[in-house]
Amino acid sequence: MSAKILEGPAVATAINEAMAAKVEQLKNQGISPTLGILRVGERPDDVSYEKGATKRAEGIGLDVEKILLDADATQDQIIDAVRGVNANDAISGLLMFRPLPKGIDEDLICNTLDVRKDVDSMTEKSLTSVFTGNGDGFAPCTAQACIEILDYYDIPIEGKNVVVVGRSLVIGKPVAMMLLSRNATVTIAHSRTKNLPEITKRADIVIACVGRAQMLDGSYFSAGQTVIDVGINFNDEGKMVGDVNFDEAAEIVDAITPVPRGVGSVTTSVLCKHVVEAADAAKGK
Amino acid sequence: MSAKILEGPAVATAINEAMAAKVEQLKNQGISPTLGILRVGERPDDVSYEKGATKRAEGIGLDVEKILLDADATQDQIIDAVRGVNANDAISGLLMFRPLPKGIDEDLICNTLDVRKDVDSMTEKSLTSVFTGNGDGFAPCTAQACIEILDYYDIPIEGKNVVVVGRSLVIGKPVAMMLLSRNATVTIAHSRTKNLPEITKRADIVIACVGRAQMLDGSYFSAGQTVIDVGINFNDEGKMVGDVNFDEAAEIVDAITPVPRGVGSVTTSVLCKHVVEAADAAKGK
Repeated sequence: MSAKILEGPAVATAINEAMAAKVEQLKNQGISPTLGILRVGERPDDVSYEKGATKRAEGIGLDVEKILLDADATQDQIIDAVRGVNANDAISGLLMFRPLPKGIDEDLICNTLDVRKDVDSMTEKSLTSVFTGNGDGFAPCTAQACIEILDYYDIPIEGKNVVVVGRSLVIGKPVAMMLLSRNATVTIAHSRTKNLPEITKRADIVIACVGRAQMLDGSYFSAGQTVIDVGINFNDEGKMVGDVNFDEAAEIVDAITPVPRGVGSVTTSVLCKHVVEAADAAKGK
Repeated sequence: MSAKILEGPAVATAINEAMAAKVEQLKNQGISPTLGILRVGERPDDVSYEKGATKRAEGIGLDVEKILLDADATQDQIIDAVRGVNANDAISGLLMFRPLPKGIDEDLICNTLDVRKDVDSMTEKSLTSVFTGNGDGFAPCTAQACIEILDYYDIPIEGKNVVVVGRSLVIGKPVAMMLLSRNATVTIAHSRTKNLPEITKRADIVIACVGRAQMLDGSYFSAGQTVIDVGINFNDEGKMVGDVNFDEAAEIVDAITPVPRGVGSVTTSVLCKHVVEAADAAKGK
C-alpha cells in the first residue's frame, strides 16, 4: 500500500484543540457556548450518538443541555420545544435527532429553528446558504468534514478537478457547492452516470458519497489522486466499509480516508465548531 | 458552417402554441391566467422589456395587470404592493423589475412574494426548490430556457456529460441542478478553472454562461457537441454577441444556439408558461 492515510481522528483532534481554546476565550468574556440536544423517544442509535456527541462537546468545554420528549410527543409539543430553544439565549446551537416519529411534520419542525442556531443544517435557510454562499446558517457537518480533512492535510482545492460521486441533499450537492466556492472545478456524478470510472480517473480529488458498499474499486482510480470516502456501509460479514474498496484504491492513489476512522470521525467536531461559532456570533446581541 | 442552428424563436413558438391551447382550456373553466407586472419608476430597459413581455403574454391569451409605482416609492409601499399581489386571486404570477431603487431591501421584498406566484424565481424558496427538487416554486426562466431548447430539438440529457461554464445563482448553479435532476453528469466550471478548453472539449453538451464576450473560441469545442450560449454581451463594435465565438464553434460542433435568436428568445415564453402553470395549480383553491 502506497497511499497516505488521511486519519479522521487527527483532524478531529486539531479542531477540538482550536475550539477548546476558543471556548476558553468566550468563557473569559462571560459566555458559555452550549449545545442543545433535542431527542424524542429513546431510539438506541440516537442515544448512542448522543453519548458520543456529549462527550466530545464536554471535552472541549461546551455545556450540553438536553431536552428529552417522550416518543409519543405531539407535533405541537416538539414545535414548542424548538421555539423554546430559539428563545433561550443560553443555548447556542441545536442538535435534533431525526427521523422524528411518524405523523410529525418534520420539515415544519426543522424550519422552526432559528437559522443562527442551526448548527446541524436542518433548516431550508441553511441549505439555501450553502447554495448561495450568503453566509446564513451552517453547512451540513459531514460535507464540511470533507473540506476540513483536505485543509488539515494541506491538499489544495482551488483550481483542482473534483468529482463528487453522489447527489444527495445531505452530502453530494452541498459538498459540491462548498468545493465550488473554494474555486474547484466540480463534477457531480451519480448512479446514472455513464463510464463513471473514466470520469473519476480524471479527477484530482474524488469524494465518494453514493452509499454503496465498496462500489468504487481500483478501476475507478489513478495515480496522484486524493480520495475522501464518505460512505458508511456494512458488508456481508457485518464489517463497516466505505463506498470505496479501500485496499484496491490505496494501492493506486496518493492519499485516502479510511472507513472507519475517516470522515465519520470528524463530523461531531464540526458540529461542536458550529456551536462555538454560533455562540461567538450571538455575542453582544 | 456545419452545425445545426438551434433557433430560439422556433422553441418559443412551440411553447407559445402549447400555452395558448392551455389558456383556452383554463378560460373555458372560468379561469383567466394573469401576469402581474410590478415596476418601480420608468427605467427605459424595464419599460422596453415590459412591452415585449406584455405583447407575448397577450399573444397567448394571458391577461396582464400592471402595478406601477413612482421611482421614489418607499420600501413599505413596495411591500404593500407585493402583499396585494399575494392576496389578489386574479393575479396568477408576478414579474417584478429589478434592481429596485437604492436603499430598498430587495431581498426582503422578493421574499415577501408567495412562492406559488413566483414565476420569475425571485424568492429564496424557489431557489431552494431548484436545489432540492422539492417542487415548490418555479425555476429561473433563463435556466429553464436552456432545457426547453434541448428538449425541443430532441437532444438527450440523461446520461450525458454536460459542462456548465459559469456558476452564478441566476443561471450557472440552477441550470446545473436542473440538468442533474434529468440525470446528466454535470461539471461546473468557471473563470478559475484550469485547462478549461480540455474540460469543455470532453462534454456532450456545453452551457456557456460565464458572461464574457466570445470567450469560448474554437479551441474549446470538439465534434459532436451541442452548445447552448446563454451570454448576452456587446463587442467593441456594439454588436450583440454570446459567450461563444459562434463562427468558430459552428465549424466544429453538431448544434449551437445563436446570439441573438437563441436562449434569450425563449425566456419570456418560459415566464408565460409559468404563469399558466401557476394559474392551473391555483385552480379550485
